[in-house]
Amino acid sequence: MSFDKLKDEVLKANLDIVEAGLVVLTWGNASGVDFAKGAMAIKPSGVAYSELKAKDIVILSLATGEVIEGDLNPSSDTPTHLALYRAYPTIGGIVHTHSTYATSWAQSERDIPCLGTTHADHFSGSVPVARNITESELAAYEAETGKVIIETFQGRGLDPLDVPAVLLPHHGPFAWGRTPHEAVKNAIALEEVAKMALFSFLINPNVPAAPKALQDKHYKRKHGPGAYYGQESDRR
Amino acid sequence: MSFDKLKDEVLKANLDIVEAGLVVLTWGNASGVDFAKGAMAIKPSGVAYSELKAKDIVILSLATGEVIEGDLNPSSDTPTHLALYRAYPTIGGIVHTHSTYATSWAQSERDIPCLGTTHADHFSGSVPVARNITESELAAYEAETGKVIIETFQGRGLDPLDVPAVLLPHHGPFAWGRTPHEAVKNAIALEEVAKMALFSFLINPNVPAAPKALQDKHYKRKHGPGAYYGQESDRR
Amino acid sequence: MSFDKLKDEVLKANLDIVEAGLVVLTWGNASGVDFAKGAMAIKPSGVAYSELKAKDIVILSLATGEVIEGDLNPSSDTPTHLALYRAYPTIGGIVHTHSTYATSWAQSERDIPCLGTTHADHFSGSVPVARNITESELAAYEAETGKVIIETFQGRGLDPLDVPAVLLPHHGPFAWGRTPHEAVKNAIALEEVAKMALFSFLINPNVPAAPKALQDKHYKRKHGPGAYYGQESDRR
Amino acid sequence: MSFDKLKDEVLKANLDIVEAGLVVLTWGNASGVDFAKGAMAIKPSGVAYSELKAKDIVILSLATGEVIEGDLNPSSDTPTHLALYRAYPTIGGIVHTHSTYATSWAQSERDIPCLGTTHADHFSGSVPVARNITESELAAYEAETGKVIIETFQGRGLDPLDVPAVLLPHHGPFAWGRTPHEAVKNAIALEEVAKMALFSFLINPNVPAAPKALQDKHYKRKHGPGAYYGQESDRR
Repeated sequence: MSFDKLKDEVLKANLDIVEAGLVVLTWGNASGVDFAKGAMAIKPSGVAYSELKAKDIVILSLATGEVIEGDLNPSSDTPTHLALYRAYPTIGGIVHTHSTYATSWAQSERDIPCLGTTHADHFSGSVPVARNITESELAAYEAETGKVIIETFQGRGLDPLDVPAVLLPHHGPFAWGRTPHEAVKNAIALEEVAKMALFSFLINPNVPAAPKALQDKHYKRKHGPGAYYGQESDRR
Repeated sequence: MSFDKLKDEVLKANLDIVEAGLVVLTWGNASGVDFAKGAMAIKPSGVAYSELKAKDIVILSLATGEVIEGDLNPSSDTPTHLALYRAYPTIGGIVHTHSTYATSWAQSERDIPCLGTTHADHFSGSVPVARNITESELAAYEAETGKVIIETFQGRGLDPLDVPAVLLPHHGPFAWGRTPHEAVKNAIALEEVAKMALFSFLINPNVPAAPKALQDKHYKRKHGPGAYYGQESDRR
Repeated sequence: MSFDKLKDEVLKANLDIVEAGLVVLTWGNASGVDFAKGAMAIKPSGVAYSELKAKDIVILSLATGEVIEGDLNPSSDTPTHLALYRAYPTIGGIVHTHSTYATSWAQSERDIPCLGTTHADHFSGSVPVARNITESELAAYEAETGKVIIETFQGRGLDPLDVPAVLLPHHGPFAWGRTPHEAVKNAIALEEVAKMALFSFLINPNVPAAPKALQDKHYKRKHGPGAYYGQESDRR
Repeated sequence: MSFDKLKDEVLKANLDIVEAGLVVLTWGNASGVDFAKGAMAIKPSGVAYSELKAKDIVILSLATGEVIEGDLNPSSDTPTHLALYRAYPTIGGIVHTHSTYATSWAQSERDIPCLGTTHADHFSGSVPVARNITESELAAYEAETGKVIIETFQGRGLDPLDVPAVLLPHHGPFAWGRTPHEAVKNAIALEEVAKMALFSFLINPNVPAAPKALQDKHYKRKHGPGAYYGQESDRR
């Protein structure tokens, strides 16, 4: 049972978030999953991106969280990734960053409202901010973080593929997708819509959300059976 | 009848908007027209810029919108481009982006006022924001978007070569020019004046528009029979 | 009488302002002067920086403004540069840009106050904004712009080497120095202090100016007989 | 007694702050110390980073401040660095910059509050702004600056390794660490948290500090005996 393809894909996702300017120092990690093999691949903890190789990517059991392959400690955020994959079998890749603007919204404890089509192309409605972790939850901090994300999506009745990102208050964003590559694209889109949302509010503090029908139109141009954006081969 | 030169020109315009930092992911497209041949050339939909080749540029009939040459789907914004070329025979190139600052003004539903000579060198007066698309117009969204732009320019009595850009509310900017290359330059100028306008308002919330005589002086330094900016060979 | 050295120096200054990120499209120009030869060298008008060669730099008579050497039109801002060199024999180089933050202050009609040592190291006191050009002055716009700058410095009792920059309202900055290279450094410093001043006001709308004694201390660390910053060979 | 290793380490730290975008022109300097040899290594004053070589790094006596090795003047900020190493034997490297956002907070005379985990991972609690230098202290400006930093940490009961940075009002930041490399990382983190803190306040002017328990959790994930972030070999 080889994990080489998964490792390559996860390595690429980790390098892509650096290339996209979402990462300062070592603040970020990307993972991918192979449900058939019951395995998750993730960046090792605290390793400089410039030195990261495919062989450094850590493979863990999705069921137990134990390391299957790899000599390094997995990302300290591993339990959060595991919790999300276990809850959502439609997700194939997860990206966590401290990207500047998304993190600023997270620090501000504010949902990012859908102000335009850039947002609507990727996220159906607001990108939600989760609730704060309680003091007692800090003992199993990273696992509880995963639970709080799931609680947020359940409480708001959201499908994680319709809203493929969340903000953790006073921490930063997680984004995901059907593959690690799609998770990277959603993390990039999130940072850009977070930036534009701040600037829009500075230009017009009373800026309304985009009309709901326009939001839906754009989301459906790119997603679902009636999608007509892109080439047929790229469609979900 | 060869479209090679048009394809090269439109390919370059698409790559130039990426090089200029106006594009995130695949959010943007540039087109060009050959009125003599009755044809428009445009970027294919959803194709990564890094892989874009001249042969991927799609050629469509200006009259019918049908694909004349090319194996890929044209940009989903094609009907908007077609509508503009049909209405304005002085326009030879169109650029659509989601560039950060221009999109933030568009999301804010605010015209970009002419605060200085950087703006006046490219745009005569404010860059207008169009009205919102109505729900019933969403059925033919991209074609109606073109109509709304034309309605905006007619309603305000604007010549599209004097104000070579528009903001679509909750969406983003379109810019144009006599050639695809000039459309790119106007898209770059638009993003920069959008950025400066935001910063100017943050410095001085009561900033007045630039004096009208100064605006006209700068616009006419670069445009029209008395222009004296640049080399003679570059003049309109 | 060869102008090769002056052309090289002015070419380098023009390329350095692009390299420093102060220039979008062709919005900017740098010049240098050789008082002994009675000549000024300046960028040609509207030429793309990527194609600029030393032989394109235009040499003009400081006395008459007539072209001595060069096949291209000089920058349309030439009369402003000439006016400044004629008024101030201590200036050897001038840079004009539309750099984002300095232009935003210029558009806002606000002096940039001295909020810290970064500012004080280069500019003694506020960077002044000149008055608006009157409508009747627009007939000889660029020459009058030079006069308005001189009027500003005379009216405020400023030595142009102590405050080597000015903001033209609704236009942008001019910076200068003893050489074209020093003018470039002052243009870079101006853009950075303009940026920091905006951010400082956003953090604290009531931010006071830096204490006057601290301003003077820093300015004198770098300038004048008691300077002790840098290596002896670099001192004025 | 060779200082080659120390010079290499300090050269690298100086180049790294440029690479990280913390430096404009020559505004910044990094130093390192070898307590066993009683020597400090620091950047020479006013030398362009692009020309900086290991042999240009100046070695001074920690006890007397006299130059031991090197042909160039040491940084004018040398007395500040000496004062910090003399007061805090746990510090092995110091970085001074005028990085844009940290300097804007310094100019605003405001502590940077801990708004999130990005901050808490590096700094335990707010990054303090020191008091203004008095006029009489300006005579020995750089040495007094060191004293004011120490006074700030003593007055607030702070361990410089728990809060490895300070803001000097109307001037800019100093950051430090156990090594020059760690000082660079803290200077990078400081700039990023300063940026995020500004944006967070713009999004939500009433943003609360991160919950204290979350701050402590994150700080302790990375520091101290219970740390579990990164690989064992990287731990303090």
